[in-house]
Amino acid sequence: MQKFSSVDSIRTWTRQYTIAGRRVGLVPTMGALHEGHLSLVRQAKQECDVCVATIFVNPTQFAPTEDLSRYPRPLERDLELLRAEGADGVFLPDEAIMYPEGFGTYVMPPPVGLPLEGQSRPEHFRGVTTVVMKLFQIVGPDAVFFGRKDFQQLRVIEDMTCDLNVPVRIVPCDIVRDPDGLAMSSRNRYLSADERQRALSLSRALHLVEELVSGGERSVAILESAMKSELKACDSVDYAVVVDAKTLQPIECVGHAGAKSVALLAARLGNTRLIDNRVL
Amino acid sequence: MQKFSSVDSIRTWTRQYTIAGRRVGLVPTMGALHEGHLSLVRQAKQECDVCVATIFVNPTQFAPTEDLSRYPRPLERDLELLRAEGADGVFLPDEAIMYPEGFGTYVMPPPVGLPLEGQSRPEHFRGVTTVVMKLFQIVGPDAVFFGRKDFQQLRVIEDMTCDLNVPVRIVPCDIVRDPDGLAMSSRNRYLSADERQRALSLSRALHLVEELVSGGERSVAILESAMKSELKACDSVDYAVVVDAKTLQPIECVGHAGAKSVALLAARLGNTRLIDNRVL
Repeated sequence: MQKFSSVDSIRTWTRQYTIAGRRVGLVPTMGALHEGHLSLVRQAKQECDVCVATIFVNPTQFAPTEDLSRYPRPLERDLELLRAEGADGVFLPDEAIMYPEGFGTYVMPPPVGLPLEGQSRPEHFRGVTTVVMKLFQIVGPDAVFFGRKDFQQLRVIEDMTCDLNVPVRIVPCDIVRDPDGLAMSSRNRYLSADERQRALSLSRALHLVEELVSGGERSVAILESAMKSELKACDSVDYAVVVDAKTLQPIECVGHAGAKSVALLAARLGNTRLIDNRVL
Repeated sequence: MQKFSSVDSIRTWTRQYTIAGRRVGLVPTMGALHEGHLSLVRQAKQECDVCVATIFVNPTQFAPTEDLSRYPRPLERDLELLRAEGADGVFLPDEAIMYPEGFGTYVMPPPVGLPLEGQSRPEHFRGVTTVVMKLFQIVGPDAVFFGRKDFQQLRVIEDMTCDLNVPVRIVPCDIVRDPDGLAMSSRNRYLSADERQRALSLSRALHLVEELVSGGERSVAILESAMKSELKACDSVDYAVVVDAKTLQPIECVGHAGAKSVALLAARLGNTRLIDNRVL
């Protein structure tokens, strides 16, 4: 597995594959890799000829009050995991490479980024769209693999890619969960044993909504209320909603006009903020 | 010369050249072509193997009060000029191709876009950076050719391209002038005979500044005052300044710290707004 830290080196490397007609798959990460990330690498290897991962804890998507400084950075372990999974290259830029002195152009996220995470974390998606656009331009991939755990982020990136005509295919990949249902997240390692136990209420709330819908319930008010009851185990809830799966706008009934819905939730356990979702 | 109106068709066409190792040059225009545009095509043909022009009157860079609806669109003549100049392809998207229903991702211009035009035309550069980024993604050029007449626009695009790591080379091209000094512009055709005569005060003001600087004058206050006197022939002046040529920030003296300066001006003749500049 080749390691790159400069824009020119990774670009030259990937370009030789593109010119040779080989498909380049990109897996952007912030490191602290878990089985969810590794499933993205596996899918990239299945669908492409070359798999490039990136590890960059992107400061522009953290608010000053958030966990940028304590975000886990187990670099050697991450590299070992990527190597074992068969990634072909990894791009490890430092902050001065990605945001040099004088940097000042941002990609403003599309409207789908306004509600929910956009309300809870006002500058977050601007940081995401900007760094993702930069990585697209640096690596020049054919396909990019994102997890469905960050459902709204995925929708934001899909719309950005379409709006700005970026010539890449966005590949959504399924959420990977621990056996007890907790969606894998680099932030799970912040949880104490008690918090982790209470964090299971997130996947339980989603399971409950799914069961209610299977049983014929269509009222979003009732579904949201059921989720909120389950989430009482958390220390606070940022949101727990059922919305249109494309626009993320409020709806009254699941199955409205044949469109898909999604249950989305964000809650806190101690200082740790977790998100999860289920498409209905 | 091949004509394209869909994103897929132009992209497929340019990509075959890229994969074959041929250099693709892009000349983005809003049509109503004049000798300035044609000089960009000539430079693109000199430096690249394939020259693609685009003609798109971009609505997002016009304010509601501006001249979008009356902007000249002499399409057949433009195509004839491009053909005669030896352009290999031209991309002619309509508005629904560039801004389909639901479009909503914008590239926010870098700080160099804030003063001057950014003050006179607040949303203008957001429209420019967004459409230019889209054209970069659609065409995938190696080099893109812009005129120095839109000096601040050129600086905005240079910074955007660098900040977002777009793998293209921006090539600034010299201003082309009528024999009497008027910088060529698609908007010159709006001018009445009297307005056109008075519009010569723009290039005269820049010539005067250049002469004063050659004669040893360094004070920006004196240079700006000289320009403003000359521009009294115009109906109004948006700005007439001498600023740092890189940041476009105010300076007190030309030649400050060995940096280049630029005289920039924007003025109106009747309903027509013209800009011009000279690097000092």
